[in-house]
Amino acid sequence: MINIAILGFGVVGGGVADLITNNKKEVEELGGDSINIKYILDLRDFPDSPFADRVIHDYSVIANDPEIDTVIEVMGGSHPAYEFTVEALRKGKNVISSNKEVVANFGDEFMRIAEEAGVCYRFEAAVGGGIPVLSPIISCVRQNKITEVRGILNGTTNYILTKMFTFGDSFDNALADAQARGYAERNPDADILGIDACRKIAILGALVSGRLVPTDKIHTEGITKVRHEDVIAAEKLGMKIKLLGRCVVTPDGLYIMVAPFMLTSDSALSCVSGVYNAVEVVGEPIKSVMFYGPGAGAGPTASAVVGDLMEIMRSGRNCAIPVMVKDEGSALSFDGFKCRTYIAMKGGCMGCVADAFGEAKAISADGEIAFLTEEMSEAEINAAVSKLESKGIEILSRIRLL
Amino acid sequence: MINIAILGFGVVGGGVADLITNNKKEVEELGGDSINIKYILDLRDFPDSPFADRVIHDYSVIANDPEIDTVIEVMGGSHPAYEFTVEALRKGKNVISSNKEVVANFGDEFMRIAEEAGVCYRFEAAVGGGIPVLSPIISCVRQNKITEVRGILNGTTNYILTKMFTFGDSFDNALADAQARGYAERNPDADILGIDACRKIAILGALVSGRLVPTDKIHTEGITKVRHEDVIAAEKLGMKIKLLGRCVVTPDGLYIMVAPFMLTSDSALSCVSGVYNAVEVVGEPIKSVMFYGPGAGAGPTASAVVGDLMEIMRSGRNCAIPVMVKDEGSALSFDGFKCRTYIAMKGGCMGCVADAFGEAKAISADGEIAFLTEEMSEAEINAAVSKLESKGIEILSRIRLL
Repeated sequence: MINIAILGFGVVGGGVADLITNNKKEVEELGGDSINIKYILDLRDFPDSPFADRVIHDYSVIANDPEIDTVIEVMGGSHPAYEFTVEALRKGKNVISSNKEVVANFGDEFMRIAEEAGVCYRFEAAVGGGIPVLSPIISCVRQNKITEVRGILNGTTNYILTKMFTFGDSFDNALADAQARGYAERNPDADILGIDACRKIAILGALVSGRLVPTDKIHTEGITKVRHEDVIAAEKLGMKIKLLGRCVVTPDGLYIMVAPFMLTSDSALSCVSGVYNAVEVVGEPIKSVMFYGPGAGAGPTASAVVGDLMEIMRSGRNCAIPVMVKDEGSALSFDGFKCRTYIAMKGGCMGCVADAFGEAKAISADGEIAFLTEEMSEAEINAAVSKLESKGIEILSRIRLL
Repeated sequence: MINIAILGFGVVGGGVADLITNNKKEVEELGGDSINIKYILDLRDFPDSPFADRVIHDYSVIANDPEIDTVIEVMGGSHPAYEFTVEALRKGKNVISSNKEVVANFGDEFMRIAEEAGVCYRFEAAVGGGIPVLSPIISCVRQNKITEVRGILNGTTNYILTKMFTFGDSFDNALADAQARGYAERNPDADILGIDACRKIAILGALVSGRLVPTDKIHTEGITKVRHEDVIAAEKLGMKIKLLGRCVVTPDGLYIMVAPFMLTSDSALSCVSGVYNAVEVVGEPIKSVMFYGPGAGAGPTASAVVGDLMEIMRSGRNCAIPVMVKDEGSALSFDGFKCRTYIAMKGGCMGCVADAFGEAKAISADGEIAFLTEEMSEAEINAAVSKLESKGIEILSRIRLL
């Protein structure tokens, strides 16, 4: 029997306790041993819960109990998750986390401490909820020359964009609908400004490159500027708009970003609708593989957390995730990133566009001028946009093409 | 340094040798050691290959060389792959296979022998080509109560069905096109009759249930009876037709099958086009996850083979796949399998349909009567169809709904 402690008895913590209880047979067969949830740490009491007698409020009880083999940190936020994790690892306990914020900020440090202490730090649930992403990237894909990892990493924004496409909703209406369904928080900023996706692409980038880029070095745009007119334009082009996290691996470093992109229907990611998430890995010789599923929710997230526990029970230190190093120098200046871009503007004419951008393909649009540029760097696009703006032309939208 | 031997220097064997050579840095970092391709077994010589000096024709050299750590069997077919595998495992060598035929027929035996010998038998490439499927199912999903594993397991048939949908091709034209592009063999039976997909669903079913159903106990239909009219009817219903392998896990046993199914656009599998494959796992509490990518080809398949080698180098016996048991008794009679069914017929009327099927929903169709049944068992559908046929009505198509 192994003893575990769960830090945080919210949606995910409850899901983990339920999974271990409800799927006792599956879990014991796979892990090769029974699991005892010895403690659940929370500020609150849960007198009506079947786990009421495990609930404690003092972390030191867990940290100082030598019987605790693995600590499951599902509290969210950087602090005290950081302090609790460091202490548990130093005391020789494995730690499993679903907390993308703490992984993106301190994952490199945790993995170093885990290695020194001869224990595991795992965090499958921190990216893509229940979708197996981290394990297959390490176990099945890293022998490839990986050129990019990218994904739809936030279900809330994907739901909003799907609503805008399927029902022609405005951004504001789609957001209100997402809030009414409980998909978006009352303060939705972490989702709609791309902050959540930014943490996840930092983690994914580190997994494929070994280099953890600080989130403040990641070019991050949300979906708040995506307009109904852009949706119409994308539809005319046979495209969809998705908020992507992308980490493009080049010999010189990483282009790492979160932004809305227009995708053709050829792209596997263009099919990912509603609150679903997906992560695509591109490399040689594998070409491209994609992992798809529910990116959040108690059950799926708990599945990923318990999956990590199973791996630790089966393989111990053998299942350790390769150490990543924090390295802000590995992020290349976004100015050099090249792609085609969709631009919509008010005023001006295609002549001004040609003057500023060279070749560009006009798109029919009501009351505005819209066009696709050739492949240009961000710096080139910025310069061309400034040129238009200096003529009093207003740029309404600017969305990159995948 | 570890020494390996590759059995079969065809498309996949060549891909494996290329990957180990071209991605030397990635492979050595991940595996923690260098890899020497000591032998390549083939009937032919390859004087112009950079590996010409490793090519041998006598398997006993490999079997009797104690330096060989791992044998990579990418020859295809049941024999002599079976004999070579048994001998290698008994002599304490790990074996990796991409050969779905030999895995579906003898996988249980190989895994037993591997366990006795304290070595690994792995076969990620046998299902879904380069897509990580087997590893994530074992490492990340098996803690769930799995109720079904299903997938688009054959790229050739998916290409043909995609052509029939996108371009309105007849089956014969789409097949000819697939042959012209090299996606289908000159003798395409293994693909179009569902034989290839049948082997893969046998393997997937064994991974989620531990029970390997002999392929001759799996209800197997190909796509040869899918008509242009059925494609039109599916489109009217907002559906697609896909050849699915399905293993439905019930408390009493497995419903395991390969057949064309109609899928609504809600189904993640309905988006999988062309030669791509995908495997979906359904369970509690994970809901559903899907793995997607190129189901064949030298590079992707080699990626999966080398991924298995990496796992063995990193984890040894710890990465062993749980043993499966051959068990024909676990396959339930297909008569009891329940689903809705689309039926098209010539002659008769909706009155006869109601008489035979009870409730049924008519679909508009040119020159024929088409309808969807309520959920009924195969036995009930068979009886109702017989009733219509006894009245001289010809059944033109019968396709189940997912």
